[in-house]
Amino acid sequence: MESKEDGVSNGGGDMLHDIENEGILLDGKDGIRRNWSGFSERNMSYAEPLLAKRTNTTSQIAIIGANLSPIESLDYEIFENEIFNQDWRSRKKIQIIQYVILKWGFALIIGLGTGLVGLFNNISVENIAGFKLLLTTNLMSQNRYLEAFVAYAGISVILAAAAGSLCAFIAPAAAGSGIPEVKAYLNGVDAHSILAPSTLFVKIFGSVLGVSAGFVVGKEGPMNDRDRRDMITCGAAAGVAAAFRAPVGGVLFALEEAASWWRSALLWRTFFTTAVVAIVLRAAIQFCATGRCGLFGEGGLIMYDVGSSKVTYSTGDVLAAILLGVIGGVLGSVYNYLVDKVVRTYSIINEKGAIYKIILVVAIALLTSCCYYFLPWIATCKPCPTNTSVICPSVDESGEYKSFQCKPGYYNDLASLFLNTNDDAIRNLFSSRITKEFHISNLFIYFGTIFFLGIATYGIAVPSGLFIPVILAGAAYGRLVGRLFEPIVKLDTGLFALLGAASFLGGTMRMTVSICVILLELTNDLLLLPLVMLVLLISKSVADGFNKGVYEQILKIKGLPYMESHAEPYMRTLAARDVVSGPLVTFSGIEKVGNILHALESTGHNGFPVIDEPPFSDAPELCGLVLRSHLLVLLKGKNFTKDRVFMSRSISQRISALDFAKAGSGKGLKLEDLDINEEEKSMYADLHPISNASPYTVIETMSLAKAAILFRQLGLRHMCVVPKSQGRPPVVGILTRHDFMPEHILGLYPGIKPHKED
Amino acid sequence: MESKEDGVSNGGGDMLHDIENEGILLDGKDGIRRNWSGFSERNMSYAEPLLAKRTNTTSQIAIIGANLSPIESLDYEIFENEIFNQDWRSRKKIQIIQYVILKWGFALIIGLGTGLVGLFNNISVENIAGFKLLLTTNLMSQNRYLEAFVAYAGISVILAAAAGSLCAFIAPAAAGSGIPEVKAYLNGVDAHSILAPSTLFVKIFGSVLGVSAGFVVGKEGPMNDRDRRDMITCGAAAGVAAAFRAPVGGVLFALEEAASWWRSALLWRTFFTTAVVAIVLRAAIQFCATGRCGLFGEGGLIMYDVGSSKVTYSTGDVLAAILLGVIGGVLGSVYNYLVDKVVRTYSIINEKGAIYKIILVVAIALLTSCCYYFLPWIATCKPCPTNTSVICPSVDESGEYKSFQCKPGYYNDLASLFLNTNDDAIRNLFSSRITKEFHISNLFIYFGTIFFLGIATYGIAVPSGLFIPVILAGAAYGRLVGRLFEPIVKLDTGLFALLGAASFLGGTMRMTVSICVILLELTNDLLLLPLVMLVLLISKSVADGFNKGVYEQILKIKGLPYMESHAEPYMRTLAARDVVSGPLVTFSGIEKVGNILHALESTGHNGFPVIDEPPFSDAPELCGLVLRSHLLVLLKGKNFTKDRVFMSRSISQRISALDFAKAGSGKGLKLEDLDINEEEKSMYADLHPISNASPYTVIETMSLAKAAILFRQLGLRHMCVVPKSQGRPPVVGILTRHDFMPEHILGLYPGIKPHKED
Repeated sequence: MESKEDGVSNGGGDMLHDIENEGILLDGKDGIRRNWSGFSERNMSYAEPLLAKRTNTTSQIAIIGANLSPIESLDYEIFENEIFNQDWRSRKKIQIIQYVILKWGFALIIGLGTGLVGLFNNISVENIAGFKLLLTTNLMSQNRYLEAFVAYAGISVILAAAAGSLCAFIAPAAAGSGIPEVKAYLNGVDAHSILAPSTLFVKIFGSVLGVSAGFVVGKEGPMNDRDRRDMITCGAAAGVAAAFRAPVGGVLFALEEAASWWRSALLWRTFFTTAVVAIVLRAAIQFCATGRCGLFGEGGLIMYDVGSSKVTYSTGDVLAAILLGVIGGVLGSVYNYLVDKVVRTYSIINEKGAIYKIILVVAIALLTSCCYYFLPWIATCKPCPTNTSVICPSVDESGEYKSFQCKPGYYNDLASLFLNTNDDAIRNLFSSRITKEFHISNLFIYFGTIFFLGIATYGIAVPSGLFIPVILAGAAYGRLVGRLFEPIVKLDTGLFALLGAASFLGGTMRMTVSICVILLELTNDLLLLPLVMLVLLISKSVADGFNKGVYEQILKIKGLPYMESHAEPYMRTLAARDVVSGPLVTFSGIEKVGNILHALESTGHNGFPVIDEPPFSDAPELCGLVLRSHLLVLLKGKNFTKDRVFMSRSISQRISALDFAKAGSGKGLKLEDLDINEEEKSMYADLHPISNASPYTVIETMSLAKAAILFRQLGLRHMCVVPKSQGRPPVVGILTRHDFMPEHILGLYPGIKPHKED
Repeated sequence: MESKEDGVSNGGGDMLHDIENEGILLDGKDGIRRNWSGFSERNMSYAEPLLAKRTNTTSQIAIIGANLSPIESLDYEIFENEIFNQDWRSRKKIQIIQYVILKWGFALIIGLGTGLVGLFNNISVENIAGFKLLLTTNLMSQNRYLEAFVAYAGISVILAAAAGSLCAFIAPAAAGSGIPEVKAYLNGVDAHSILAPSTLFVKIFGSVLGVSAGFVVGKEGPMNDRDRRDMITCGAAAGVAAAFRAPVGGVLFALEEAASWWRSALLWRTFFTTAVVAIVLRAAIQFCATGRCGLFGEGGLIMYDVGSSKVTYSTGDVLAAILLGVIGGVLGSVYNYLVDKVVRTYSIINEKGAIYKIILVVAIALLTSCCYYFLPWIATCKPCPTNTSVICPSVDESGEYKSFQCKPGYYNDLASLFLNTNDDAIRNLFSSRITKEFHISNLFIYFGTIFFLGIATYGIAVPSGLFIPVILAGAAYGRLVGRLFEPIVKLDTGLFALLGAASFLGGTMRMTVSICVILLELTNDLLLLPLVMLVLLISKSVADGFNKGVYEQILKIKGLPYMESHAEPYMRTLAARDVVSGPLVTFSGIEKVGNILHALESTGHNGFPVIDEPPFSDAPELCGLVLRSHLLVLLKGKNFTKDRVFMSRSISQRISALDFAKAGSGKGLKLEDLDINEEEKSMYADLHPISNASPYTVIETMSLAKAAILFRQLGLRHMCVVPKSQGRPPVVGILTRHDFMPEHILGLYPGIKPHKED
């Protein structure tokens, strides 16, 4: 206990010493009380006025993204100030019921909206891509091969350019998957304009164009919606539910991957939303089955019925599945590694301007078209099977046996994969009807192409999901392994394709339960469940040994300060005060308007501790925390007093809770909207009614790990650090999410080793 | 802000006034410093020494249960004291790897164990009950009806008496479902002996006997296992996975119903455990399918393959489903209401002694046998259908067409339901092959009987699940509705039985996602998913309007202090200090051994704040929290000093972290094990090395709602309440889970209305 004497009770205190004793007191110009200089004016002495003079700049810089827009944190905590409490107490039963109905109404609308958007997406893709494929096939059947290529590549490039332009000019935030941003939002970080209506618009149309252009992208990424936390969670669940027609999978996806906090009530509401999506889609499919949706027929809205009634598997199958899982894990982590590198490279190009973005999109579109059109020429024509009920070669835009360049009665197996929509390609890979259709070498070519095209496509300026490319590559890989192991396995190669998809999904995204359920809902086959679980477990474990999941990687590249649910090991050796960054700006309970205004102008802080001092209390004490947005409303209302006195109740009642609610929603006032004259600047404002009287606090010596867990579990934005010993200012610092970021902490203490948990 | 002046800043302060100003200072006999009397000795004056003189006795009394055993809270928080930190820092990489392997190893063992127990359960039940049914059927086919009844009822009563005796004499805690207890454990409450090995033993054998006896009980309740929190969660998931062969449903059950805290890592580990269960069961079924498990053949380990390849439904079906959901919700809440009443009634009987318990069990067994054997006589014989491939009447112990008293070529439809195991009855109800087999009036008789027998059976002294009775009653009800609505619905009556089961499960248990997945995994049909979700949503919403879920009700009857994840509305009007109960016992950083001993003897407290005072600090300050179990280890080690000085490092290193870890596991020392003489009592012990230097604290004026959320989210056992203003003792009270119970709070403030949220 020898470290006790010098006031540092936590381990690792020694290295912090020089910083702590550095002394404080930032420049207190213009009468703004900073760092307790106000106290020294009144001849009160404090042993250690503040903790340390540091600024946190490390964690707010995005590695990619041209506009380095400020990243704001979100206030998820219920801000219990007096006005809120008054409003809450006066609320009548009918208003509470209205509120509940409103919340459920939103969930209903999100469900309906997502269902309809999903449907629209599917119908559009099936029709546009179907037209493109039909045209190409028809030209080829007339031996006009060059024209066929020009038509195919031309349509693709035009669609891609359109998608890229939408994205580059209207909503740059719509590029990519959207899942990392939603994940960050639900963790409490508001990335600029990710939830703007223009982003939604571009997400929907851009993804239709992008998928139709034949990119190796999925259509599931863009399906999110805008509203606040719970609604976003519902939206994320609804999006996955609509993309895969997997309502339960959607709920689990939102739970496992997206949501940082989880309550039983939220489970219940996401379940409701995805149920609405499922019902909408179900009704729509029944409608479309009658042929009233153009080329969108039975094939639309992916559902790969592998439909093998009885699955039994041998030891050979299990061994093959284990091997599949191991290699899938390795390939998945390689995928993540390459995506990371590609995204970083592309961001250099994308930052040069919108035109460069579009050029990149067109180049990738052209590359994809070339691969898709020319690679099938490598394959030799195979005679159609005689014992099948399926038409061979197929005549419509989808189909299992593409004729391509072959003479009648023959088909090209590579064309059956390449010259199809992604959905149909997956359906063909999962198919158990056509066991030996695909030659091993062709499966290998297809796998390699899709693997690298998928990587090359992510990061270009179109909305693009990651699920479908990963499933495509995984299914091809699984089918390949199934064919290679044919002598020892009893399982169908179609089921191996399913296992391959599972292993790839596990290897890249590192989710387990939700992938499992999504795959089950996609394929409608529960009997394979134990093997799917085994493969997922293995591939995730193997891949976790190499790097992090793809969404975490993208979060990191985008510089979003994501708070993990666990504390890092090195945080145990630090105390809360060791990472606090300044300058700390506090207000008196009744503060001069000029001081408030100056603090708002000169800092970007969003929360300010409010401190009562004599004569308003016996000793200085922390009486709450006040938010920037609420201060702006107060200043706008101009409820000032000439003297340092409490605001009368009549005035406090004039401030409607609604004003503050609006301010909280981010659509509130800006500093420029205020018009305060010099006389008013010398008046006083009572901050008590608008300050949160119960801010969460930690004692300065609290282990940083525990402080981080408190911060994360309760979804805080600000946390007050209070002194351990008496006779010091009642608050010695504020912790925000940025102060918990590894970049910040390891920047302060370069000696700490982050214990291999990169 | 007028309440500010008297030091009460929170609303609702007025009513608390007389309590707060009552003055404090409990009897401080034998030199134990209580309530800061130690400070007044040193002529230090404090404005308000403690908060209030209250004791909390309300919430620890169980309404049922003969042995009013003490309910202990659990320490889920990582207790970061110096010894822990030292141990943690000195831990080598190899030890961390060992620890990780150990945790996964446990998960593996739980999965394997649960899978094997599930299998054993099923094989035993199928063989014992099968033998009983075969014997009865054979006797009946020889027209020896009386002997058949005697055999049937006799075997049932003997099995029931055996199950009841096991439960009454060996492990009373094994009675009932076990899910509420697990739920409470995961919330942080240790109900006495719920996790003892004897309980597990009785759970396994008692449930086999009980189910074989023909009780309307499920075999899913007992499948839990013993270990600590995460392992219990895994065990709960594994239990459900094994009972229903639904691994994903098991994970979701653990998530939605059982676990109070949830981390992504836990999802991952439960998933692993249930995957192991699934693989074990899968292998066992393949083995048993060859006929090497006696009467356990294809029928074992429930899996009701409704297997209708294409489900389409009309508006009439949807309307019928909505009605089904509404009535199912009402019936579900009636079920809960009656279960509550019956359990309370039975507890009066059960408390009289073990013999009464067994008599009750035998009486219910006899009642069940009579219902099962005599009710089928009401039904008229129906001619066997001619267009079916199934043998009619069936000849083996299970089967869809029971001959009962009928002449050859005829069958008794009620006997097909009653004289079968519960699993086979469910299979028959879900069957779509035998559309018109069950007459409407017979379905009604069956439904009524099962509904009331299920209620009458819960609460007797046998391990009994709730799932199967609820599914049985729900399936009968659903099939009944399906038959009644035959003119307007297109859906198969078997599928209506499934929807009925969903509505009943939603109405009683109020789970959604997990029931949905369990039903899907049970029936292997995903196409019905939207309707199942709809029915679940409606029945849960309707039933929530009447009362709480059945597990919450049982928790309440058992008096387990369960902390809800949300704060009650009335908590917003109270502050943390308003509910603190005393006496508060604190220790000095270096405390007299006699004082420690006396405090341990005279209170039942588990956590004591440790306060450093001059000369060891400038002013009194909270330096940590120390646990009873750790104090006992310290006293046992006798590392005392003659004078009030810090313990030397050499001594502190002698105290092995392992000793404390063992103490934490509840298997540690008892007060009686200590042997401290008078001389030692006057010596001093340094509490710093064993105290948690970073206890979570709240300021006394913190809104109680926020304090409750902090307490619940972080899974705390003790929370220190610190003063708002300076110049008072550094800790003014301790909050434990009991202080947040509505019984306690509403007992203190009878004026508060608990806002209809019962």
